Amino acid sequence: MQELTFKVNAQSETPARTNVKARNFEIIVDEPKQLGGSDQAPTPMEYLLAAHAGCLNATGHMVAQEMGIALKGLKIEIEGTINPAKTFGKSDEDRAGYKEIRVVFKPNTDADKATLEKWVQQVESRCPVSDNIFYETPHKAVIE
Amino acid sequence: MQELTFKVNAQSETPARTNVKARNFEIIVDEPKQLGGSDQAPTPMEYLLAAHAGCLNATGHMVAQEMGIALKGLKIEIEGTINPAKTFGKSDEDRAGYKEIRVVFKPNTDADKATLEKWVQQVESRCPVSDNIFYETPHKAVIE
Repeated sequence: MQELTFKVNAQSETPARTNVKARNFEIIVDEPKQLGGSDQAPTPMEYLLAAHAGCLNATGHMVAQEMGIALKGLKIEIEGTINPAKTFGKSDEDRAGYKEIRVVFKPNTDADKATLEKWVQQVESRCPVSDNIFYETPHKAVIE
Repeated sequence: MQELTFKVNAQSETPARTNVKARNFEIIVDEPKQLGGSDQAPTPMEYLLAAHAGCLNATGHMVAQEMGIALKGLKIEIEGTINPAKTFGKSDEDRAGYKEIRVVFKPNTDADKATLEKWVQQVESRCPVSDNIFYETPHKAVIE
């Protein structure tokens, strides 16, 4: 299949609020007031979970169709906990990011538990956002 | 420091469009038409990069202040390339997610190159989103 490249262009609006452009879309990212932001938009850590949820929904429906699972609807809850100490330069004891990602799938379907467990395994393995969060991703940084 | 938990509640609007709630905010995630969506909002892979950009901006300003770097503005470009074959069940040759994340930092500052290289190293190491994308993250899934 043809490879797809996604790109965003971001600009600081304030030290903690960011205006991001993705194609013709604008995404505002902010921080709560206690983290120096103005709390006018979701935080980066919420957008990370939203990206994950959107990806699991789309992949979830595609895999369900392949497996012959009639999915009448899908709710997904995702949460994670961070210790902000590393980010704020206070301690290196914990990692900076989510220590663990917890996903609850609430599919509206008559499929049995064993089938749904196979479905979740396939969905998580094929969802691109799960792949980048769950496993290592190479990265390059350039200063211009 | 006190741990922080972030959570999203997502609901499928269509098989490829997702309505995500994070506190009082609503985030719509969609897919382009060729991926089965209605192209009314950014894709999960764009939100992942937007989360990263917002996190690098906030962390970047905090670390600059600590290092005595006068940051008059910051632009960040992030891109990544995926092979959709694994997601679409066509081939397991490539991973599902971004093969590599490329970040371009464009700080508006008089700081010298060596100082900015130290700054980028600190920022990437302390930004929670970088941490979750660059390194492995444990995960749990439950079906309800």
